Amino acid sequence: MNKKIRVIVAGPRGKMGSEALRMIQREDDLELVACLDHKYDGKKISDIDGLPSFDVTIYEDIEQCFQSVKADVLVDLTTPEFGYKHTKTALEYGIRPVVGTTGFTKEQLEELTQLAEEKELGTVIAPNFAVGAVLMMQFAKWAAKYFPDVEIIERHHDQKLDAPSGTAVKTAELIQEVRVSKIQGHPNEKETLAGARGADVDGMKIHSVRLPGLIAHQEVVFGGSGQNLTIKHDTFHRESFMSGVKLAIDHVVKIDLLVYGLENLLD
Amino acid sequence: MNKKIRVIVAGPRGKMGSEALRMIQREDDLELVACLDHKYDGKKISDIDGLPSFDVTIYEDIEQCFQSVKADVLVDLTTPEFGYKHTKTALEYGIRPVVGTTGFTKEQLEELTQLAEEKELGTVIAPNFAVGAVLMMQFAKWAAKYFPDVEIIERHHDQKLDAPSGTAVKTAELIQEVRVSKIQGHPNEKETLAGARGADVDGMKIHSVRLPGLIAHQEVVFGGSGQNLTIKHDTFHRESFMSGVKLAIDHVVKIDLLVYGLENLLD
Amino acid sequence: MNKKIRVIVAGPRGKMGSEALRMIQREDDLELVACLDHKYDGKKISDIDGLPSFDVTIYEDIEQCFQSVKADVLVDLTTPEFGYKHTKTALEYGIRPVVGTTGFTKEQLEELTQLAEEKELGTVIAPNFAVGAVLMMQFAKWAAKYFPDVEIIERHHDQKLDAPSGTAVKTAELIQEVRVSKIQGHPNEKETLAGARGADVDGMKIHSVRLPGLIAHQEVVFGGSGQNLTIKHDTFHRESFMSGVKLAIDHVVKIDLLVYGLENLLD
Amino acid sequence: MNKKIRVIVAGPRGKMGSEALRMIQREDDLELVACLDHKYDGKKISDIDGLPSFDVTIYEDIEQCFQSVKADVLVDLTTPEFGYKHTKTALEYGIRPVVGTTGFTKEQLEELTQLAEEKELGTVIAPNFAVGAVLMMQFAKWAAKYFPDVEIIERHHDQKLDAPSGTAVKTAELIQEVRVSKIQGHPNEKETLAGARGADVDGMKIHSVRLPGLIAHQEVVFGGSGQNLTIKHDTFHRESFMSGVKLAIDHVVKIDLLVYGLENLLD
Repeated sequence: MNKKIRVIVAGPRGKMGSEALRMIQREDDLELVACLDHKYDGKKISDIDGLPSFDVTIYEDIEQCFQSVKADVLVDLTTPEFGYKHTKTALEYGIRPVVGTTGFTKEQLEELTQLAEEKELGTVIAPNFAVGAVLMMQFAKWAAKYFPDVEIIERHHDQKLDAPSGTAVKTAELIQEVRVSKIQGHPNEKETLAGARGADVDGMKIHSVRLPGLIAHQEVVFGGSGQNLTIKHDTFHRESFMSGVKLAIDHVVKIDLLVYGLENLLD
Repeated sequence: MNKKIRVIVAGPRGKMGSEALRMIQREDDLELVACLDHKYDGKKISDIDGLPSFDVTIYEDIEQCFQSVKADVLVDLTTPEFGYKHTKTALEYGIRPVVGTTGFTKEQLEELTQLAEEKELGTVIAPNFAVGAVLMMQFAKWAAKYFPDVEIIERHHDQKLDAPSGTAVKTAELIQEVRVSKIQGHPNEKETLAGARGADVDGMKIHSVRLPGLIAHQEVVFGGSGQNLTIKHDTFHRESFMSGVKLAIDHVVKIDLLVYGLENLLD
Repeated sequence: MNKKIRVIVAGPRGKMGSEALRMIQREDDLELVACLDHKYDGKKISDIDGLPSFDVTIYEDIEQCFQSVKADVLVDLTTPEFGYKHTKTALEYGIRPVVGTTGFTKEQLEELTQLAEEKELGTVIAPNFAVGAVLMMQFAKWAAKYFPDVEIIERHHDQKLDAPSGTAVKTAELIQEVRVSKIQGHPNEKETLAGARGADVDGMKIHSVRLPGLIAHQEVVFGGSGQNLTIKHDTFHRESFMSGVKLAIDHVVKIDLLVYGLENLLD
Repeated sequence: MNKKIRVIVAGPRGKMGSEALRMIQREDDLELVACLDHKYDGKKISDIDGLPSFDVTIYEDIEQCFQSVKADVLVDLTTPEFGYKHTKTALEYGIRPVVGTTGFTKEQLEELTQLAEEKELGTVIAPNFAVGAVLMMQFAKWAAKYFPDVEIIERHHDQKLDAPSGTAVKTAELIQEVRVSKIQGHPNEKETLAGARGADVDGMKIHSVRLPGLIAHQEVVFGGSGQNLTIKHDTFHRESFMSGVKLAIDHVVKIDLLVYGLENLLD
């Protein structure tokens, strides 16, 4: 029988953190051994309203936590500032970090890459843990080699502040790496109502739909003569991110260097 | 046994006109008795390359045509100028007109309405003969009473010059007649790339996608808390317009006044 | 200033009942005045974990409740047995019922219809309160007059036991009322893998997709030559039912007879 | 300046062959130098009604053709029998074959592979030249590693005889190569109408929609907790196959062995 992977979760009361607890509860090969939080030092997770009833201690001090509890992996779903500090400390203590963040600077990433290499400790840092969304972006990047005409339609609930979404912009940037640059549409195309043709990224178009009821959805549509190829991702619930966290945990214990981006774990 | 409806087609070599010939060929209760064209006077339809082989005479002069051939209905799929002249002359000769056009002036429509009433002759004038598109617009108008949040995404081939499409604008206008006016999206919504949120019509948004391969497609998406309702029409081929022409012919022989818009035949 | 509509909710701890409480909390013109439950007699709603903090009393006995509290409307989202009893009692006490149920017998409906008429009290009984789903079905029924070729694709989470869904079957039945009966597909069509062409209802086809992640979705696709017309409803969250409950409350106070089915409130 | 690639087309009057002529007409780096047909020996392509006006000779005898005209590539879009014979002869004459067929036997493929290797001549044989469809299948195969729950919905015009489509079955087979075998849906799932859950391939489901208006469409939907990933291909016109033929021509002149399947040219 395989030993379970012993996991510490930082940020257990956050939206993502609490989903991580539920995921660990469902997975037979994972074991929650402690949590890191800036509140509730010494309390149990089971004491906190709305969280799964783990008989596991909450620590406010990361060093005390790592000294008291033997763990294999730290799952950090907090903020860039805490995430950076936690990652460094984990590596010092021989614990492999799995970190969800878009906020690390280039310098921080380089430093952590070097530290992981020195310590020969697997580390996964990912801006996006939704396996489906990461695959969508990889497929889009691949398809763009053969279909330079592409438009992105992303749809979100109407409480979202920014348009286009970060994922849409990221997708366009990935496509740009391989797409033959071209201005799409008819050369004499004319907007009779401004904005109809959407936002422009190197000739590609992005359209942002905002409606109540929606959650987070994106389709990338490639057009060629006589055909269309569409790659679409629907997020219905934030638990969608957890399959990626699980995948990262499974990988991080087998590697001895830092990997940035879930796509580099998807072969 | 019912007598067949005797039809004259004006513009038999046009894209729409030639589809009308094919439709008449398929339908057992219709009979093509003559065609009007500005060329090929005295020739037969079967002499013209690419048209169905009807042994039917082409006339350049409308009065000569109406004097020579007994007909029930004139199907006119030409231009607004010809359409107007043809419609008047048909009514004078006791022939019921079915006309596809967006181009009649208000004065012309009023004059023709009065003439049809005097003559007690059914007349159908329609800007759009695609039954599916007309239903889409009617459904959208109905749904908007209950879902004031709505966005229109229309998709066309990339040779289309104008954005948004006429159908999208028309749909928005119909919705406006019943929709509680509101500005959609978050009040502090911000476009980080201009145009992302599409064109604005009274707070509603229209997005125009242009890609090779596409033909003519539109979806109208209504959002409410916890749900979305979508009405979508795909035109794959221009023969889609012919079911509406057939419907108009069937109706026009039973009525004795002018009806504007196919929607007024769809009960 | 209009007086608020005073509402009693039966079944406040159920999935639908608790959503109804949240809806009443959001709506300015509604006031929750009591709840009916088979537990917690005398407690307050605010005492119950997970419910909105209304300072409103729970009653186990319906007559005691109606005698103690003056109300305009009873919203009943319980079971057919309780719903029937509650509806009768409410009408006896001069309170207008809004009931969500598919389970009343024909005899019960007739009895309640007569009672509502005698008492001149508005009553709304509806099997489905999702306005979007009800509109989808009405649109489908309308479209089927012009497009006799139709297939239904419904998609639900993979924990659903029955296929096809009740809504899909109901939609097919409504379509059947107006559709010209026909066997669809090629007469010599052949399934090389059994079941590929879906379930058959009078020549129409229903396809049931079951996948994790999905919630409740249905599209009704009409095909005609050169075109498709699609009506699609997505349920992302059960709060989608509450717009229909609100609509029913708004109507029930203005009418003096029983209306069955939300579609009869949607003009 | 690059020399143009000199192309012979076999089957120029077929649906695919005539599209190939139109594609060659559009592409600056291709030159049509002859055609092979079982009729019209000695005539010009421009003599044939409905074909582009190439001043290029038609040959009935393949050896005479290859002896008279210097060519780089033979594009064969005929039948398996002719295709096999043409491919062999082309290789004997030092001409690189690009062949669209699903019909070669294993023995024929092995023989041609060996012959191409001996002659060191690039050869491309592909069952499907629609780049979009081939990418869809590759993406589906990739996604299935991470999402074992998958259903395929394919939609075709209602004149199609077989269900499911060959592409749907092929997609399921490709997925099977990597998917963890599992029975999908609820273990106690029940069809109240037979066929609702579609055709079964190793627990995966395939649904075949047949409606007038449709052309050829397929979506592969992967479900995971809280998310769906969809890959969709729409064929609107058979010219969609020509981008794959062009791709194959571009590759075949650069390689010196036989490649089976367009996917092996898509890196």
